[in-house]
Amino acid sequence: MVAPTAAARRRFGPATTVLVGYAAVVGSGFALLTLPIAKAGPGGARPLDALFTSISAVSVTGLSTVETADHWTFFGHAVILLLVQTGGLGIMTLASLIGLAVARKLSLGSKLTTSAETQGVGLADIRRFITGAIVVSLTVEAIGAVVLGVWFAAVTGFPPLEAAWYGLFHAVSAFNNAGFTILPRGLVPFVGDPVVSLALSALVLIGSLGFPVLDELRRFPRTPLRWSMNTRLVLWGTAVLTVVGTLFITAVEWGRAGTFGPLDWPTKVPAGFFQAAQTRSGGFSTVDVGQLDGATLIVMDVLMFIGGGPAGTAGGIKLTTFGVLFFILVAEMRGRAAVNVFGKRLLRAVHRQAITVSLVAVGVIVASTVALALLSDEPVDRLAFEAVSAFATAGLSTGITSDLSPAAQALLLLLMFAGRLRPILLASALAVRTRPLTYEFPKERPIIG
Amino acid sequence: MVAPTAAARRRFGPATTVLVGYAAVVGSGFALLTLPIAKAGPGGARPLDALFTSISAVSVTGLSTVETADHWTFFGHAVILLLVQTGGLGIMTLASLIGLAVARKLSLGSKLTTSAETQGVGLADIRRFITGAIVVSLTVEAIGAVVLGVWFAAVTGFPPLEAAWYGLFHAVSAFNNAGFTILPRGLVPFVGDPVVSLALSALVLIGSLGFPVLDELRRFPRTPLRWSMNTRLVLWGTAVLTVVGTLFITAVEWGRAGTFGPLDWPTKVPAGFFQAAQTRSGGFSTVDVGQLDGATLIVMDVLMFIGGGPAGTAGGIKLTTFGVLFFILVAEMRGRAAVNVFGKRLLRAVHRQAITVSLVAVGVIVASTVALALLSDEPVDRLAFEAVSAFATAGLSTGITSDLSPAAQALLLLLMFAGRLRPILLASALAVRTRPLTYEFPKERPIIG
Ligand SMILES: [K+]
Ligand SMILES: [K+]
Repeated sequence: MVAPTAAARRRFGPATTVLVGYAAVVGSGFALLTLPIAKAGPGGARPLDALFTSISAVSVTGLSTVETADHWTFFGHAVILLLVQTGGLGIMTLASLIGLAVARKLSLGSKLTTSAETQGVGLADIRRFITGAIVVSLTVEAIGAVVLGVWFAAVTGFPPLEAAWYGLFHAVSAFNNAGFTILPRGLVPFVGDPVVSLALSALVLIGSLGFPVLDELRRFPRTPLRWSMNTRLVLWGTAVLTVVGTLFITAVEWGRAGTFGPLDWPTKVPAGFFQAAQTRSGGFSTVDVGQLDGATLIVMDVLMFIGGGPAGTAGGIKLTTFGVLFFILVAEMRGRAAVNVFGKRLLRAVHRQAITVSLVAVGVIVASTVALALLSDEPVDRLAFEAVSAFATAGLSTGITSDLSPAAQALLLLLMFAGRLRPILLASALAVRTRPLTYEFPKERPIIG
Repeated sequence: MVAPTAAARRRFGPATTVLVGYAAVVGSGFALLTLPIAKAGPGGARPLDALFTSISAVSVTGLSTVETADHWTFFGHAVILLLVQTGGLGIMTLASLIGLAVARKLSLGSKLTTSAETQGVGLADIRRFITGAIVVSLTVEAIGAVVLGVWFAAVTGFPPLEAAWYGLFHAVSAFNNAGFTILPRGLVPFVGDPVVSLALSALVLIGSLGFPVLDELRRFPRTPLRWSMNTRLVLWGTAVLTVVGTLFITAVEWGRAGTFGPLDWPTKVPAGFFQAAQTRSGGFSTVDVGQLDGATLIVMDVLMFIGGGPAGTAGGIKLTTFGVLFFILVAEMRGRAAVNVFGKRLLRAVHRQAITVSLVAVGVIVASTVALALLSDEPVDRLAFEAVSAFATAGLSTGITSDLSPAAQALLLLLMFAGRLRPILLASALAVRTRPLTYEFPKERPIIG
C-alpha cells in the first residue's frame, strides 16, 4: 500500500525535480553570462543572448546567437564549459537512473525479474551510476584534453597555456556533444587536420553512445554476446548511420565549390566522415554548413533527427527508437507476428512508445518549422534544419541563428530545452505510471493505408 | 489443404493482376495521347509528356508537365477523362474488394465472424461492390455535371455545348480527385465564384471519403450509431482537417499580395476552404500555389500526406492511418493498455500496419525529395511539395513540374504510380498473408527516447 502523499510524490516527483534542477542551472548560467566580466568588449551581454547561450550549453546543443569565440571572455567560456559539463553529467545520470526505475517497474509488471530485459540500464545502485558516469566522463575527457592540448601546442602552434585550455574546452565540449568551439577562427581551418578531426569525432561518437552502453562496454568489452539489445541497437545504429552519412555527404559534396571542392581528395572522405559523425549529435563543423547542397541538408536533418544513444548527451529520437521502428517495419513486411531484434523478442509496450516518441518529435519539428517560416524570410529548408538541430540538440546550423528575430530565437530556445528534457520527462512519466485499464471495448479495425 | 498452384496464385494473384491492369490502362492512354490528333498544333506530343499525363490521369493525381487546357485537343481531353474515370473506378472497386478479402481473412483468423469488425468494408458480394461503386460514381458525377454545366452556360457565359463539356469534365475530374482542369484560363478566375468553388469542393470531398464510407452513408444515412470505425475516422478526419486547414490558410494568406490579398474579404474564407479541401486530395487551385507562404506549403504538405478515406480516389496515408496513429498517441499519453477509437478497441495488428504505412510513406517522400534536390536547383521546400503531391496523388503544384528535368519528371511519374498502387499492393499482401510464427524469442526491451 502506498500513502497518497507518497503516490503524489511518485507521480510528480521525478519530472518536477528534473525541471527545477535544469531551470536552476540555466538560471545560474544566465546570471553569470550577463555579468560584464563574461562578455568581451564594453557592457554586458544582451539578455536573450545570455539566456540562449545558457540553455544551449546546459542542453548541450551548441546553437548560438553570437560568435562564441569572440563574444565571450575567458570567464564566459569557463561558465559555458561548466554548464556543458553539468548538463552532460546531469542528463547521463538522471536518464540512466530513471531508466533503471522504468526497467525495474516493467520487470515487476511483466513478471520478469532478473532477465536480460533490465541489462540495458544495469542493476547497480544509484551510487555506482553516478560515480560511474563521472569516472567515465572525466577519463575520456582527460584523454581527449591531453591529446588535443599537446597537438594544439606542438603542431598547431598555440602557446602552451592557450593550447591546454583549448584542449580541455574542446574535449569536454565534444564528449558532451555540446558543439561549442572557442578557437579563434573556428574549426574550418582544421578540416584537413587528422588529429583534431579524429579526436573530436571519436569524443563525440563515444559520448553519443550514452552511459548504459559505455557502462556495458566497460564491463563486458570482449563478450558481445552479453551485450543488451540497447547496446546492440546503439552500436549498429551508430555504425550504419555514420557509414551511410559519410558516403552520401562525401559523394554529394565532392566537387562543390563552397564545401569539399577545394579540398585535396584524401581530405574529402575524412571531411565527410567528420560531418556525418557530428550529426550523432556533436554539432561541430569543419565546413560552412550553409554552403552544403540542399540534398545534404535533408540527409543531415534525418541523421540529427535520429540522434544518438539513449541516456547520454546525444539528442534526437535516439538510435533505439529508430531501430525499433525499423524492426517493426521489417516484421510487418515479412508478416511476422512478433518483432524480433537481434534474436530477442521486443516487448509490445515498446512499439507504442517508439511511435509516440517519433510522432511527437515529428509534430514538434513540423509545427516549429511552420512557426519559423511565419517569423522569418529565410528559406524553409534552412529553418527546418535549424528546428531539427535545436530539438535534436545537435547544434549544427546553416548560419542563420544570429539573423533570426528574437521571437524565432526564443522558439529555438524552447526547442532546445524541450528537446533535452523530453526523454527525461517521458521516462519519468513511464516510471510513475500506475493507471490500470479496468475495462475493454469490443475489438474493431479500420482499413489501413 | 491448399494446392501449391492455388497457394502461388493466392500469393501473387491480386498484386500481379492489379499491376498488369494498371499498366495496360496507362499504356493505352499513352498510345492514344501520342497520336497527333490528341495534341493541339502540329506534330504529336513528347513521349514523356504523354506518359506523364497518362499516369497522372490513371492515378488521379493531376500533376502535369504541360498546360492541360492548351496542350491537348478535345480528343486528348476525352482520353484524359476516360483515363480518370477508369482509374477512379478501378481503385474504388479493387481496394474495396481486396479490403473485403482482408477483413474476412482477419475475421476467421481472430475467430470473430459477423462482428462489427467487417462493417468497414461491408459483407456484400463482388457484384454489389462493383455496381455500387459505378452507381455512386455516375450519380454524383451526373449531379455535379448538371450543376456545373448549367452554371457555366447560364452565368459564366460559355456556349451551351462547351459549358456542358466543361461541366462533365470537371465533375468527373473532381469526384475522382483527379485535379485536371481544361478551362481556358484555369480555375483562378473562379476564386470568387460560389457555385463553381462549392461544387468542386463538394465533389472532391465526397469522392475522397472512399467507397466503403459512401456505401455506409447510403445504407444508414440517419443512424450514425451503425457507422463503422472506418466511417467515423474518415468523417471526423475530413471535418477536422478541413476546418483546421481552412483557418490556417485563410489566416496566413489573408493579406499576401500574390494570393488572398487582392480578394474581397467575404471571398477569403471560401478561398481558404477551397484550398484546404483540395488537399484531401482533389488538386484544384483557385490561387497561384507558387505564391503561397512557405508556412502554408508545409501545412498543405501535411494535409496532402494524410490524404482522404481508404478504398477511394484519395491518396496519402489515409485519414484512418493518421487517426490510428493519433489514437495510439492518446492511449500512450494517458497510459492506457489498449487503444480505443470511438468506443471500440483497435486490433493490435492495425498498430503495426499504420506504423508501416506511415514509415514507408515518409521514407519514400524524404528519399524522393533528396533525389529531386540532386536533380534540380528549385528551392527544396517546393521540391518536397511536389514529391508529397505526387506520392499522395494530390496533384497540387507550385508550378515547377514543367520546368523539371526529364529525370526529375520521371521520378514524379514513378511516385504517382507507386502512390496510387501502394494501398492496393499492401492490401493484397495482407490478403494473401499466411505465414505463421512458429517460434518465439525471449522478451527484451531497449530504452526508448
Ligand atoms: K550538440
Ligand atoms: K488529385
